[in-house]
Amino acid sequence: MNYKIDNLQYCNWSREVFEINRDAGLDAVHVTIVYHEDYDELLVETKKWEKLFKENSDLIFLGKTFKDIEKANSESKTAIFFGFQNCSPIEDDINLVEKVHQLGCRFMQLTYNNQSLLATGCYEKIDSGVTNFGKEAIREMNRVGIVIDMSHSAEKSTFEAIELSEKPIAITHSNPSFWHDVKRNKSNELLKTLGESKGMLGLSLYPHHLKNNSNCSLESFCEMAARTAEIMNVRNIGIGSDLCLKQPDSVVEWMRNGTWSKSKNYGEGSKDKSGFPKQPKWFEDARGFKNLEKGLNKVGFSEDEVNGILGNNWFNFYKNI
Amino acid sequence: MNYKIDNLQYCNWSREVFEINRDAGLDAVHVTIVYHEDYDELLVETKKWEKLFKENSDLIFLGKTFKDIEKANSESKTAIFFGFQNCSPIEDDINLVEKVHQLGCRFMQLTYNNQSLLATGCYEKIDSGVTNFGKEAIREMNRVGIVIDMSHSAEKSTFEAIELSEKPIAITHSNPSFWHDVKRNKSNELLKTLGESKGMLGLSLYPHHLKNNSNCSLESFCEMAARTAEIMNVRNIGIGSDLCLKQPDSVVEWMRNGTWSKSKNYGEGSKDKSGFPKQPKWFEDARGFKNLEKGLNKVGFSEDEVNGILGNNWFNFYKNI
Repeated sequence: MNYKIDNLQYCNWSREVFEINRDAGLDAVHVTIVYHEDYDELLVETKKWEKLFKENSDLIFLGKTFKDIEKANSESKTAIFFGFQNCSPIEDDINLVEKVHQLGCRFMQLTYNNQSLLATGCYEKIDSGVTNFGKEAIREMNRVGIVIDMSHSAEKSTFEAIELSEKPIAITHSNPSFWHDVKRNKSNELLKTLGESKGMLGLSLYPHHLKNNSNCSLESFCEMAARTAEIMNVRNIGIGSDLCLKQPDSVVEWMRNGTWSKSKNYGEGSKDKSGFPKQPKWFEDARGFKNLEKGLNKVGFSEDEVNGILGNNWFNFYKNI
Repeated sequence: MNYKIDNLQYCNWSREVFEINRDAGLDAVHVTIVYHEDYDELLVETKKWEKLFKENSDLIFLGKTFKDIEKANSESKTAIFFGFQNCSPIEDDINLVEKVHQLGCRFMQLTYNNQSLLATGCYEKIDSGVTNFGKEAIREMNRVGIVIDMSHSAEKSTFEAIELSEKPIAITHSNPSFWHDVKRNKSNELLKTLGESKGMLGLSLYPHHLKNNSNCSLESFCEMAARTAEIMNVRNIGIGSDLCLKQPDSVVEWMRNGTWSKSKNYGEGSKDKSGFPKQPKWFEDARGFKNLEKGLNKVGFSEDEVNGILGNNWFNFYKNI
């Protein structure tokens, strides 16, 4: 059986988006449900999702284990797995880790771009690694079954998270920096260690992570995937598109600034290009998976390897944790 | 005019404690009203204080500026200045800095012992300094008038806070590590820089910060003060007793552990000595200021210098910020 999984989307959710994901044949999507929200604000978001699940029960349902991916596949639906891009929902309380798991959380980033209570983000000048609370949180996330996601974390913190975690971790949406050298992308050394620890890399389709941004070619992206497979086992590579369909630019401002700054922070953008960037033509939404399939075949991946990258590798990762 | 100021107490507040502070002749006390509480929990604490002010209006009132110290002195009352020992009440929101100031906050530690969103605490292995959010918070604290308190912070973070802050900072309750080398005490180099920046050191009477702990002698303490005055200007030295009168041991457990750990952290204590330590006999409560006065005279401080250490130096600090 082959599964198609996009392991990171943060769309402005609507029936239309769920239909697009179904058209793309996605059996599972890991969706970001919160960035900088605290626990109470998370509860508000989960209630919105309850409504979405109810109104679109023919298209989606809440996924909790790998079996829900099998179920989704057999019912032609998409299993939605919840994740957080910052650790703010657990506030400063170790007991909230179990509670957010009960609410459906299966992935949590230890940091967004800045320093968190758990670790350092990739936009800080100095990376002090995993904190005292961070060590406790990793142990607890391992225990209850929440994947440690280091997509927005700084390098030393990520190496330490791999080392400290008893279970493989994930970088759900980043690319290698050898291809496009920006703060959010990852070094060869880190990717090698990630792969050796059986951790997953989700290749990102977000233009700021792509060589030539919105003008990135499918060929270039797929060649990058091939070179990445020389650094880490191809079985540890998947897709985490970082699609933000239909989101207004105010949302990217919130993602970058939260409430921590009085001045405006442009993150990966700039004053001139502060909004969401335009997707490359061959991946305007998840239906681009079909283009990826062709492109990955063309650069020499076997059919089995292509199916792995497009979903089976994430499926196996879900199965093993 | 001479003022007596204790610039850090965290007592189990009651009329009895306020009476002791009046007996001691304290014109002002900087009290810790929260440790790890968030903004909503802070509001609960301020309501408790409203009640205390109402019921003990013959003894105390809320202090907001140095003029309230003069007022307290003339009315034989004690002005209470609010402070936080962690930055959790501002959560991740820069706009809460102004709000907590409006609620009366005049001192805020950037960190307790662990990493915070603003800086690194003295119990972390690696100190990455002031974070992106920390830089924003310092600017905002300077603007609204909240003193940056680095008593529980790590060294690099403290040097950076001194450098970044446009106004002098404070270490409200710590001692020099040359005298008693523990994580909470401070190096000569740091104290020198603090003094040169016109920042204040409040000498602590908390046994874990004292040479020979509960058995520390008055002479030893006052000699330490004399040696500290060789490192930093005597005008930048005051008292921050860290008195925790009438607190049950469950409170020190909360101070150390907050909610971040499933295992128990003993901080400055140990498994065998996990509770509050016994105060030295010559400083069982603020009435010990009288012993300090004698002791400081004895080690050679002038009357003017002694009055400075016991309150006038803090008064001038309040006046200048």
